[in-house]
Amino acid sequence: MHRTHTCGELRVEHIGATVTLSGWVQKRRDFGGMTFIDLRDRYGLTQLGFNEEQDKELNERARSLGREFVVKVHGTVIERSNKNDNMPTGDIEIKVSDFEVLNAALTPPFTIEDDTDGGEEIRLKYRYLDLRRNPIQEKLVLRSQLNKAVRDYLNDADFVDVETPYLIKSTPEGARDFVVPSRMNEGQYYALPQSPQTFKQLLMVSGLDKYYQIVKCFRDEDFRADRQPEFTQIDCEMSFVERDDVLDTFEGMIRSVFKSVKDLELGDIPKLTYDEAMRRFGSDKPDMRFGMELVDLDDVAKGNGFGVFDKAESVVAINVTGGNNYTRKELDAFTDWVKRPQIGTLGLIYCRVNTDGSYKSSVDKFFDQDKLKTWAEKCDSKADDLIFVLSGNTHKVRKQMNELRLHVGELQGLRPKNKYAACWVVDFPLVELDEESGKWHAMHHPFTSPIPADRDKMDTDPGAVKANAYDMAINGMEVGGGSIRIHDKNLQKRMFDLLGFTEEEAQEQFGFLMNAFEYGAPPHGGIAFGLDRLSALLSGTDSIRDVIAFPKNNMGRDIMIDAPAPLNADQKKELGM
Amino acid sequence: MHRTHTCGELRVEHIGATVTLSGWVQKRRDFGGMTFIDLRDRYGLTQLGFNEEQDKELNERARSLGREFVVKVHGTVIERSNKNDNMPTGDIEIKVSDFEVLNAALTPPFTIEDDTDGGEEIRLKYRYLDLRRNPIQEKLVLRSQLNKAVRDYLNDADFVDVETPYLIKSTPEGARDFVVPSRMNEGQYYALPQSPQTFKQLLMVSGLDKYYQIVKCFRDEDFRADRQPEFTQIDCEMSFVERDDVLDTFEGMIRSVFKSVKDLELGDIPKLTYDEAMRRFGSDKPDMRFGMELVDLDDVAKGNGFGVFDKAESVVAINVTGGNNYTRKELDAFTDWVKRPQIGTLGLIYCRVNTDGSYKSSVDKFFDQDKLKTWAEKCDSKADDLIFVLSGNTHKVRKQMNELRLHVGELQGLRPKNKYAACWVVDFPLVELDEESGKWHAMHHPFTSPIPADRDKMDTDPGAVKANAYDMAINGMEVGGGSIRIHDKNLQKRMFDLLGFTEEEAQEQFGFLMNAFEYGAPPHGGIAFGLDRLSALLSGTDSIRDVIAFPKNNMGRDIMIDAPAPLNADQKKELGM
Repeated sequence: MHRTHTCGELRVEHIGATVTLSGWVQKRRDFGGMTFIDLRDRYGLTQLGFNEEQDKELNERARSLGREFVVKVHGTVIERSNKNDNMPTGDIEIKVSDFEVLNAALTPPFTIEDDTDGGEEIRLKYRYLDLRRNPIQEKLVLRSQLNKAVRDYLNDADFVDVETPYLIKSTPEGARDFVVPSRMNEGQYYALPQSPQTFKQLLMVSGLDKYYQIVKCFRDEDFRADRQPEFTQIDCEMSFVERDDVLDTFEGMIRSVFKSVKDLELGDIPKLTYDEAMRRFGSDKPDMRFGMELVDLDDVAKGNGFGVFDKAESVVAINVTGGNNYTRKELDAFTDWVKRPQIGTLGLIYCRVNTDGSYKSSVDKFFDQDKLKTWAEKCDSKADDLIFVLSGNTHKVRKQMNELRLHVGELQGLRPKNKYAACWVVDFPLVELDEESGKWHAMHHPFTSPIPADRDKMDTDPGAVKANAYDMAINGMEVGGGSIRIHDKNLQKRMFDLLGFTEEEAQEQFGFLMNAFEYGAPPHGGIAFGLDRLSALLSGTDSIRDVIAFPKNNMGRDIMIDAPAPLNADQKKELGM
Repeated sequence: MHRTHTCGELRVEHIGATVTLSGWVQKRRDFGGMTFIDLRDRYGLTQLGFNEEQDKELNERARSLGREFVVKVHGTVIERSNKNDNMPTGDIEIKVSDFEVLNAALTPPFTIEDDTDGGEEIRLKYRYLDLRRNPIQEKLVLRSQLNKAVRDYLNDADFVDVETPYLIKSTPEGARDFVVPSRMNEGQYYALPQSPQTFKQLLMVSGLDKYYQIVKCFRDEDFRADRQPEFTQIDCEMSFVERDDVLDTFEGMIRSVFKSVKDLELGDIPKLTYDEAMRRFGSDKPDMRFGMELVDLDDVAKGNGFGVFDKAESVVAINVTGGNNYTRKELDAFTDWVKRPQIGTLGLIYCRVNTDGSYKSSVDKFFDQDKLKTWAEKCDSKADDLIFVLSGNTHKVRKQMNELRLHVGELQGLRPKNKYAACWVVDFPLVELDEESGKWHAMHHPFTSPIPADRDKMDTDPGAVKANAYDMAINGMEVGGGSIRIHDKNLQKRMFDLLGFTEEEAQEQFGFLMNAFEYGAPPHGGIAFGLDRLSALLSGTDSIRDVIAFPKNNMGRDIMIDAPAPLNADQKKELGM
């Protein structure tokens, strides 16, 4: 037997017991004739003690143990003379009578400590060592708890966990598929699913009523920071539901998850329309942890001879509470920040509200105190606040202001990682125009239903049609999204038509779904949550890589196993390549 | 709102309530001025009633409803005059006040009944309709319950659910990989995992202690009946364990699963060595639901001038209780059955034990009554039993006798689908010789540890080395298997060497694992269960296709979505093909 207890288990009530522990050497301290070792496993640390006086040879052997050696020790639990209140096992130590080295260890290429000295590349290459560190291991355990919390809630709500296939058919529309050549069907390919969308809809046609699956999905995108070619979705679908049935069900799920994983009661989850979210926050995934909402200054800012505003479609402001204490240099830094190509403004206008209630703006030439007062009134600004103003194309300037709002919020400490605020965004546009191709694109996907009242506008004014679609955002991140689906074959055809599919293309790619709609498809809708992102959010990390056991780097490579890699000649030949 | 209740929910206590139901028209019966419809959803059937006298127009509209139409009905729950005890909702019906057709339906290509008239091909093509049938839907629900039961047990036992990557590196050793060309790394390929074996071992190196995952795996095999290119494993690994720690843990899991899914207490789960299983049953996955064990007749059958026996390495018998009632014609059929190429014997010898205790064999010329009596004593045969005898190469004849045993057991009703008997088979050979290539192959996989006592034989007599490996069989099917792994770099090298890997090949394919072993790998072991097969077993079906929502056919094709399929030219170009 390798152990009677784990390294996190022993307490004062075990004093006197003979125990066997196994684990890794975390640290060794040699004091005169005494040697102390912290032995580590997933469950904690336990101190081992050796004493030259009692057993000289054993004490010497103990001093040959290096960091990360794997050892099995036998001994007696004794009370510590120097108790350590910061350690759950800090009241006791093991007086070791014998031990065995189960495996020696080379010196690890970086320290296995909460704050390691290893850079990202080396930690990815030796991921199995990085995973030994508490901060990483805790995130994997949290992810497992999240997974369980989701399943518990959905199982209790009568959802059936159904696996859909991974080897499916390529649908060139949308993002790029990863494909898999078929050896048995030469010249033909499977595709890996970007989502189980059509399969879950077919499960609804089959009467399964409530489906869920926690499932890997794949997207062959040009890699950028914090994108993974494979990612995990909590994928769900329900029959005989309307929008609010879905929102109520999954609001319940998210509340239940926060309660069971973080012991936190989520506050109100407001429903914002897309238009409202864009107007108030400049984002379809607003960070609701703080106010600093966008203010429309059009009527007080335009028509004062300041050409930049006068020519702009929109003039938009935010009020920074207490922002008057920013120095001139700091304000310049904000200007530089928004002028970077990632944000792309031409400049940044500000107006200080001085302690005495007077105003000092960067456009005093065009706006006198009275005019600036109207700004301040609109923005509900108080003494010592600061107003930032941007102008330009409405959609663009709102998005720019969203970035600035988030940046200022971050600096002001308004976005703490341990505070969570969720919202629903609903009534998205059904389609958006791709400027380049002049084609309409589905904003969610082609199976999303338009809002019934807007259906007639599909032919006359597609851009004005709202979709029966919804996203959930938490802390400014989209964590889930879905829609009520089309369940009528003719409406689905009309949608494909609007998106520029020929009848043949639609039939070839989605014929099986449209055929299924002929045989009694129920009204249905669903949602998918990103498990990676939810895990990151609950772990308080910004990178999904931290919550994935074996992530790929930004080039889509697994540098630990060195994949992808060339095939050997036999494999290529068999695949007809 | 589409419904206030499901179609399986209403009882006498609901009488008088106004309800809304939605579902599919299962059946319509027209009687004079009355119309009855059975409305179906996942939860059950509810009878709807219409009456010409009360509402002529509504009754007529009801008569336009065809099979599988989707309707939403409003009405009042009333007591039935003719109660139906076979239906949970059989005490009530709905007096319909109004209804709405949510979707019409074409006549389905086969009947949506428990016993359908549809052939397999058409049912696969319209799988979403086949899934409407109770026997299939129940299997998916059972699979979901099985999944939950497994997770509940493992979560309670402190296992962490960790996802390992799907886009990994090809390892040409073993079965064929499915590969995925990388667009971003031209000329390079990912492979889909045949199992997460190396990753779960790395998780042990990382100190995760107890890991599980329910995960899709992929194997590009030449297709044969009831093989799927993608299949699902319950994949588990533990650190600081010896064999019996693993067996105890997973025996507990299997018991817990049977209890929660079938409300069944599994009986004893004996541990048989591989040698014992082969000797007693001729199989490394014996069906323990019945006896009829193999009997070694060497010492009583050989040396009597019957050349077939005298030249044979082994003479093996089974006793068929009451088998004397088989007719001559039936015995001939058994002979034909074992002579088919799938079994491949040259003949089949039998010996009847007559009612009066005398014997009648097919080799009376060589064996008199006294000699046959020694057979009967060895076989513990009683009056009216029958002895079947086969001879030849020991390993081959045992396997042949296993087939005959299973066949006879089936005919005798000794293998009922609702009876379950499990066993462990342990101490498998570590390697087996491939006759063609003269090379040693790993019987489990190259990471399996030899039994410590046998380690020295690895150089001198590899075929005699036992592996620290184990399988679980239930009802003659292997449902799970695993081993204590090698955790020592030098032993792993020796194993690769035995299997004929050059040092370069071993390093290229598994270097990351062997490097990991340098940094403090703990002793570890694990197991994987086939979820598809367990689901089939618990569902009482012989085909795993029945427990997969969207299975592929024997050619690896999904004939519903028509995959695999050719790629379009743009996709090929992007992939550099």
